[in-house]
Amino acid sequence: MPELRKDPVTGRWVIISTDRARRPGDFSRERSVVRGAAFCPFCPGHEDKTPPEIMAYRATQDAQSDNGVWNLRVIPNKFPALGIEGELDRQAEGMFDRMNGIGAHEVVIETPDHMETLASMPLKRAENVLWAFRERILDLKRDRRFKYILVFKNHGEAAGASLEHPHSQLIALPILPKQVLEELEGAKRYFANKERCIFCDILRQENETRVRVAAENPDFVALCPYAPRFPFETWILPKHHEAAFENAPPNTYENLARMLQEILNKIVRVLDNPPYNLVLHSSPVQEDTDDFYHWHIEIIPKLTKTAGFEWGTGFYINPTPPEEAARFLRDAVVEKQLATGS
Amino acid sequence: MPELRKDPVTGRWVIISTDRARRPGDFSRERSVVRGAAFCPFCPGHEDKTPPEIMAYRATQDAQSDNGVWNLRVIPNKFPALGIEGELDRQAEGMFDRMNGIGAHEVVIETPDHMETLASMPLKRAENVLWAFRERILDLKRDRRFKYILVFKNHGEAAGASLEHPHSQLIALPILPKQVLEELEGAKRYFANKERCIFCDILRQENETRVRVAAENPDFVALCPYAPRFPFETWILPKHHEAAFENAPPNTYENLARMLQEILNKIVRVLDNPPYNLVLHSSPVQEDTDDFYHWHIEIIPKLTKTAGFEWGTGFYINPTPPEEAARFLRDAVVEKQLATGS
Repeated sequence: MPELRKDPVTGRWVIISTDRARRPGDFSRERSVVRGAAFCPFCPGHEDKTPPEIMAYRATQDAQSDNGVWNLRVIPNKFPALGIEGELDRQAEGMFDRMNGIGAHEVVIETPDHMETLASMPLKRAENVLWAFRERILDLKRDRRFKYILVFKNHGEAAGASLEHPHSQLIALPILPKQVLEELEGAKRYFANKERCIFCDILRQENETRVRVAAENPDFVALCPYAPRFPFETWILPKHHEAAFENAPPNTYENLARMLQEILNKIVRVLDNPPYNLVLHSSPVQEDTDDFYHWHIEIIPKLTKTAGFEWGTGFYINPTPPEEAARFLRDAVVEKQLATGS
Repeated sequence: MPELRKDPVTGRWVIISTDRARRPGDFSRERSVVRGAAFCPFCPGHEDKTPPEIMAYRATQDAQSDNGVWNLRVIPNKFPALGIEGELDRQAEGMFDRMNGIGAHEVVIETPDHMETLASMPLKRAENVLWAFRERILDLKRDRRFKYILVFKNHGEAAGASLEHPHSQLIALPILPKQVLEELEGAKRYFANKERCIFCDILRQENETRVRVAAENPDFVALCPYAPRFPFETWILPKHHEAAFENAPPNTYENLARMLQEILNKIVRVLDNPPYNLVLHSSPVQEDTDDFYHWHIEIIPKLTKTAGFEWGTGFYINPTPPEEAARFLRDAVVEKQLATGS
């Protein structure tokens, strides 16, 4: 059973995993990515290589599709960071705090096609990925042990992906990750002070100056934030104030998929198909943050090797002003953008 | 002139650098490390390849040394993250906050010998590195523009080192890095509650259970912390309470050098000479933190590629329980340890 432990000074919770690689020798062999579709456990025909399916989208109404072939599958992670069964069993160890590593760890297989990417797949498929996030969040949040549902995607080996086949992940947590807590506290403080959502205010100001806006459609804005930690860090925010991703108006999911694909394709074009991490920032699931929080997606291309210093200090040196990053992204013409006709 | 910008939500300051690599094409060419002594700007005889020396240790009293040859040099970083000249010029940009990127960025060339490492060099040299940190901190803190002096070392290319020759860095900052602020606030809260230093309490508890102690000498303890973010993360703490590194009793510097070398050699032995980051956590220089803060050194071996997810979320999954890491380090027998005869 993995363990959740709290740093007594900063209050940060970490998962101490007990089932994964951990002895000194295990680190010298770098994990290598399974390439090609032949041995891919996420490809159609290899369903028995994964744990039993949690849900799937199948085009049964579609006469032209193969009968029973799925378009998207959600499965438990075969090597979960947290265990789903048991009690939290919160305990003190002298001055320290721990609890059992209870949580869910799921994988969204975004497409049956091994060679597609989230950027290149048909719009409808990208939209389905978002609907799958929504469905899984709505289901997982009914479990009152979970306080936060982390939705993220590692694209490319250098960003931490261990399988090539397009997939995203969900981790349901019994605690709030530190960065989520910081955002929440910052947004709450701002609201207490001004009775306005800080993200709505940011959108208003960015909309006036335009210098950090990378793309826009009727429901969403993509911008390079004012004080980004990483070069070409890009956020996608809904124009309409809403604290939780799963409560976004259903008729905006298509435009979110469109914006996501447009930005990812611009990033592919400008930065030569870099590895990236994508993280959904949404409200904690058992808290009312409606007034002050505003869900969004953060995309961080992995362009530099040298993150050790940043980890160690929480201090970031970003070599690309966001105004320049936004200009490059804005100017990049991509097929998906043309296809939307907007 | 680089710029310091503050994230309006979390309050995190970042440096937006304007002089370093920044256009999209610059990222595809990974920086490569200069190997071998022939072209090394830090080697003796190449002093003209570096900016003018800030200070140096020369063994003029030592008749056996070459006349005028240095043992350690401190120079300005040739590509500084911050500029030393000018005013902070704090400004608002609408709802955002910025100031000029004023600061100092220095390099400590730890030895004239290209092939040594901080782990392998003679004890006296390692001690000199610590004295150089102290001297530079004492000098830089007289500049009232600086609130924090960050001392760190990137060892190995994967940890961000761009030159092979053993060196450390100092960055003097007009702001407090977020992670420093979090530690300070946590320690202050604990002191307000208990009127005891939280680090002293940690030392007391770890000394009783011993399971996370990796090494010990009369003045210092090395331990794997209870809730580490990274496998084999190791902290070196002074047994004697002291908020600021530069105020540590002078007669303890030798034992600090000894402990540092012992732990680095154990890490080299157990983890097959991994890249690592070393960060000195010390008191802000213009604040009185004497009661509640306790300086220490954090060493983070870089063992996994997959940090993107962690950056994006502030949420860490550590595959090695610190009790196991401490046991491996404790059990590793290294020459430096034998040499101390303790």
